[in-house]
Amino acid sequence: MALALKITAKCGSARAGEIHTSRGIIETPAFMPVGTQGTVKAMTPEELCEIGAGIILSNTYHLYLRPGTKIIEQAGGLHSFMHWDRPILTDSGGFQVFSLSPLRKIEEQGVTFRSHIDGSTHFFSPEKAIEVQNILGSDIIMPLDHVVSYPASYEETLEAMERTVRWARRSKEYHRHNQRAEEQALFGIVQGGTYEDLRERCCSELINMHFDGYALGGLSVGEPKETMYHILDKTVHLLPPEKPRYLMGVGSADALVEGVSRGIDLFDCVLPTRIARNGRVMVPEGYLTLRNAEYTHDMRPIDPECSCYTCRHYSRAYIRHLLKANEILGVRLTTYHNLYYLTGLMHGMRRAIKENSFGQFYKDFWAKYNPGH
Amino acid sequence: MALALKITAKCGSARAGEIHTSRGIIETPAFMPVGTQGTVKAMTPEELCEIGAGIILSNTYHLYLRPGTKIIEQAGGLHSFMHWDRPILTDSGGFQVFSLSPLRKIEEQGVTFRSHIDGSTHFFSPEKAIEVQNILGSDIIMPLDHVVSYPASYEETLEAMERTVRWARRSKEYHRHNQRAEEQALFGIVQGGTYEDLRERCCSELINMHFDGYALGGLSVGEPKETMYHILDKTVHLLPPEKPRYLMGVGSADALVEGVSRGIDLFDCVLPTRIARNGRVMVPEGYLTLRNAEYTHDMRPIDPECSCYTCRHYSRAYIRHLLKANEILGVRLTTYHNLYYLTGLMHGMRRAIKENSFGQFYKDFWAKYNPGH
Repeated sequence: MALALKITAKCGSARAGEIHTSRGIIETPAFMPVGTQGTVKAMTPEELCEIGAGIILSNTYHLYLRPGTKIIEQAGGLHSFMHWDRPILTDSGGFQVFSLSPLRKIEEQGVTFRSHIDGSTHFFSPEKAIEVQNILGSDIIMPLDHVVSYPASYEETLEAMERTVRWARRSKEYHRHNQRAEEQALFGIVQGGTYEDLRERCCSELINMHFDGYALGGLSVGEPKETMYHILDKTVHLLPPEKPRYLMGVGSADALVEGVSRGIDLFDCVLPTRIARNGRVMVPEGYLTLRNAEYTHDMRPIDPECSCYTCRHYSRAYIRHLLKANEILGVRLTTYHNLYYLTGLMHGMRRAIKENSFGQFYKDFWAKYNPGH
Repeated sequence: MALALKITAKCGSARAGEIHTSRGIIETPAFMPVGTQGTVKAMTPEELCEIGAGIILSNTYHLYLRPGTKIIEQAGGLHSFMHWDRPILTDSGGFQVFSLSPLRKIEEQGVTFRSHIDGSTHFFSPEKAIEVQNILGSDIIMPLDHVVSYPASYEETLEAMERTVRWARRSKEYHRHNQRAEEQALFGIVQGGTYEDLRERCCSELINMHFDGYALGGLSVGEPKETMYHILDKTVHLLPPEKPRYLMGVGSADALVEGVSRGIDLFDCVLPTRIARNGRVMVPEGYLTLRNAEYTHDMRPIDPECSCYTCRHYSRAYIRHLLKANEILGVRLTTYHNLYYLTGLMHGMRRAIKENSFGQFYKDFWAKYNPGH
């Protein structure tokens, strides 16, 4: 068993727990910072530990294309290559193949795609995606899935969901015979777009295959948030409670709170690091856009209540100056703050669940938060 | 007295000492990392301390244009604005006005120039340059000087040198009546291009004005290194031994060693941080260009003998991957290494001077170093 979840507290549908892995314990619910290319943009591993990240996500698609699996294999795996010894989850590349590749051809055997870097042609099958992740040596791996864009017709979504299920079976079968099966947990990815019945069918098919955890894919891809929450309401309770539940690609504070309230354990998203590079920072009230002129003379920290490195030492005016002058330190400081903010939010939710006060936490959060801010 | 130099050891012309300032002691000879826009590119102040930087340099010209003195004044000065509590030396803007400004008009009263950022017109007089540095609150300030490019005729160099002397006198006079005169040391800048007699005359004129230290300006601007060393040979011994000597704009390992061997105490240069951003790193043998294909599979650290953060945890292959993928961490790691390398080199020279073995240090350095490497 590569992974075991221990639920330590529940409060309504929200749950707190510990995912035990050979590289340590991940306290849940947890947000996973994204290290697309084998680095969480602008951060060192030590800073991520300081911030409190218990696990990060990295991208099979990107690492396969650059620097390539041979180099990472020579380095002794991704952990050693990037100097990170806590758990790593790698996605399968499915989402990237369907969103980044300029040309792709989907067949039952797998998907042929062009590299977004140099245009070269590549082929990923479910087996290949597992094989690459075996070489990366990540702790949680994902099967290749067929992601549809939003909106998608019922027929298109059905076909992609059914293929996702068939590919999940092949992935499981291939991984079972792999020598690293005992070290690497394999999750199933639930697809089915915004169609409740397709989501339900997909859940039921995947659960019969007994994955180590279940991810909800194909959400937060453009649909209204209410639609996503509705799908969560219809889906999460179908998943086996003793297995981790992972909502893919979600990282805004409000969606994390809503996700946790519905029983999600894991999240990942480029949002906090991506907006940080544009000078947008997360605060309890929503967001600040530090490049705006209103912060020119603002000597307050980003968030006076925040105790992160950035907020302890730097003013909005200084960070704005750095961003305007294209100084790397500006991006470092905003990235640090955003990841600290989300990690702190998850920590607060874990505590509230354990103290049986998640309802109050939820109310307090929404009393301050205004996404239009 | 804003500053006092205590020479603790000599070895030939090389000397080791301590510059005592109200913000602490600077051990010399020292290399000053450059924080042009109020940040040493890609580094935090804590990292600079960890690396061993005792003083940094910042640019009056850049800070005056962006974010402007008003914001830095509101922040309580540059130290507080940028969260750095060790000494800061600010240059006068002379070099930048003469090298960066697209249009400039030099008159006896001062120099009118256009901002390289937005094209707006500004006027710097010697008095204005001191006033701006008073607001910045740096520990060592520099007078406005007239810098000529290389090569320059004798007549042009003479005229610029004489103006530099007149402007130095006005700067001294203005600074003397300033309320911060006791906190801020003012150096004189020796100009005179590559003409020995002009350098000598400039030294003698400035020494009569009793500055707190003396800088050699207008070198390392394109002339052959041998010419620079020749000017140092003819000039350094003219400077009062009890005052700090600062060679402006020099930061290659070989020039630091040659400068120290001739009795220089302080250096600054963008070289280590600038080349780091291009993936070029300093090693005892010279330089490595990490973007080169030869490092694709190279699992060794940048310098196996180096004990810096970068060399303790990351391979050339990983850093090359980061640089090729335009990841900020790549630039952070190369910048950290280069500054650590130069700071270590200075530390080694200080120790060798104190142990009376600088001659051996010099021989050992040149036995390994090959700038064409």
